Amino acid sequence: MKQINPRVSIVGAGPGDPDLLTIKAWKAIKSADVILYDALVSAEILGFAPAEALKIYVGKRSSDHTYSQEKINEMIVSNALLFGHVVRLKGGDPFVFGRGGEEMEYVRKSGLPVSIIPGISSSIGVPGIIGIPVTHRGLSESFWVVTATDMKRNLAKDIQKAAETDATVVVLMGLSKLDQIVNLYLRKNKNDVPVAIIQNGTLSNQKILTGKISDIVIKAAAEEIKAPAVIVIGEVVNLYAPSQIYNQVKNVLA
Amino acid sequence: MKQINPRVSIVGAGPGDPDLLTIKAWKAIKSADVILYDALVSAEILGFAPAEALKIYVGKRSSDHTYSQEKINEMIVSNALLFGHVVRLKGGDPFVFGRGGEEMEYVRKSGLPVSIIPGISSSIGVPGIIGIPVTHRGLSESFWVVTATDMKRNLAKDIQKAAETDATVVVLMGLSKLDQIVNLYLRKNKNDVPVAIIQNGTLSNQKILTGKISDIVIKAAAEEIKAPAVIVIGEVVNLYAPSQIYNQVKNVLA
Repeated sequence: MKQINPRVSIVGAGPGDPDLLTIKAWKAIKSADVILYDALVSAEILGFAPAEALKIYVGKRSSDHTYSQEKINEMIVSNALLFGHVVRLKGGDPFVFGRGGEEMEYVRKSGLPVSIIPGISSSIGVPGIIGIPVTHRGLSESFWVVTATDMKRNLAKDIQKAAETDATVVVLMGLSKLDQIVNLYLRKNKNDVPVAIIQNGTLSNQKILTGKISDIVIKAAAEEIKAPAVIVIGEVVNLYAPSQIYNQVKNVLA
Repeated sequence: MKQINPRVSIVGAGPGDPDLLTIKAWKAIKSADVILYDALVSAEILGFAPAEALKIYVGKRSSDHTYSQEKINEMIVSNALLFGHVVRLKGGDPFVFGRGGEEMEYVRKSGLPVSIIPGISSSIGVPGIIGIPVTHRGLSESFWVVTATDMKRNLAKDIQKAAETDATVVVLMGLSKLDQIVNLYLRKNKNDVPVAIIQNGTLSNQKILTGKISDIVIKAAAEEIKAPAVIVIGEVVNLYAPSQIYNQVKNVLA
C-alpha cells in the first residue's frame, strides 16, 4: 500500500498563459496527488499533473454548484489526509485577493504542512506583458492594487482613496463596478486620466481596450468587455503601443 | 555565417530562487545570444543560458564600474544588432521599479522588436512564500507597492500618502530610509502596526525580522539587516508563523 504523506501546496498558476507558470509551481503540479483548481486555471496547466492525480474543480463561477470557502478548506485537508499531496491551484498569485491566506490558516490549524508558491499576479503581469508598466520614471512612482468590492459587495473603501492619489491604480475583479470607479475619478476632475482594460490577459482570446476616464465606460460597453478583466488607471497606460507587441506570439520566444 | 535576427526580451528573473523563474523566462534565457543582467540575478539562473551566450553584468551595485541607464539602453540595442537575441534579465518583475519601461521605449525607438516577460515581483512573492499575504479578508483589502526614494533621492511622496491608509504597504529599496518611513507612521499614531523585513528573500541566506512600527528600527539595527530587503507594513504581518514554513526546503517540493 502506498504510504500517505499528507501536505498542501497553495500555488499561483499565473494569469493564464501556461508559460507564465513558475518552475516551482510546475514541479508542485507534477508531484500532486490531488489538484483543487479554480475557474481561471487552464486545461493546459492541469495537463502538467500526473494522469492518475485527482483533478477537482472548486471554482466559484460554476452555475451548477458552488463550494463555499469553508467547504473548499475542508476538501483541501480531507484530500491531503486521504491521498497525500494536495495542490490548491489558483489563478494569478494566491495571496492577491485569492483567499489563499484563509486556506493557509485552515490547513495550519489542521496540523498539516502547507507551502505557498507565489504566481505571476495579473495585476502586474497582465498589463506588463503588453507593454504597460505599473511604474515608470516620471509617470508613476508606485502602484496600488485594489479590488472593487468589499466583503459586503459594496464599493471598496480603498479604491475611493486610491482615486485621490497619483499611484497607478490596478483594479482586479472591478468590471461590474466600472461606472462607480469612473465616478470616483470624475469627482476629482480626473477626466483625462488614461485607462486600460484587459480581458483574458495573456490568453489567445485576450482583448485590450484603452481610453480615458471620460469615455471608458461607453467604450467598454460598445466592445462588450467582460470579466475576467484587469483595469489599469494612470498615465502609464499611455505607453501602450499596440503595433509593438511581440511576446504574445509564442514562437518568437520558444 | 550565422544569420543575425536582432530582438530583445526584457525578462523578470523573480526574487532569487531559480525555481521562481517562469517557464517563459527560462525559454527566453535558453535562446539568448547575449544576457545583460543585474546584481540580483543568481549564477544558477545565468547557468540556464547557452554556454556560448555572452553574459554581461550591468548591475548598479558594482563598485568597480557603473553603467548609466543610457549606456545600458545602448548596450541592449548594439548587442542585439551584433549578436541577435538579447535577454535583459532583471531581478523581480521588470516593470516594478526596474526601469524596464525606459528600456522598452529605447528599444522601440531603435526599431527592434521587444518582448516583456513578467517575473514574480518581490513585493508579492517574498512575503508570500513565507506566509505573509499582501491581502487577507478582514485585515487588508488592498496593497500599495512603493519605493522609498524619488528621482531626487528624497523620501518618495507616495509613501507619505500610503502611511495614511489601511492598505498593506510594501516598500522596495527602502531600508536606508527605514527611520523616515517609521516616522511617517509614528506621526499618525500607528505605533502598533506590525512590520516585517525580509532580507535576501527566497534565497538560502534569507533573514526575516518582524516587529512593530515602535521597535522595528532598533531591531533592524540589532540584527544588522541589510539590502536587498522587502519591507511589509500592515496587519497581515501577524499571520507570519516561523515554525510553519515548509517551502523554503527545496526537497519538499521537488
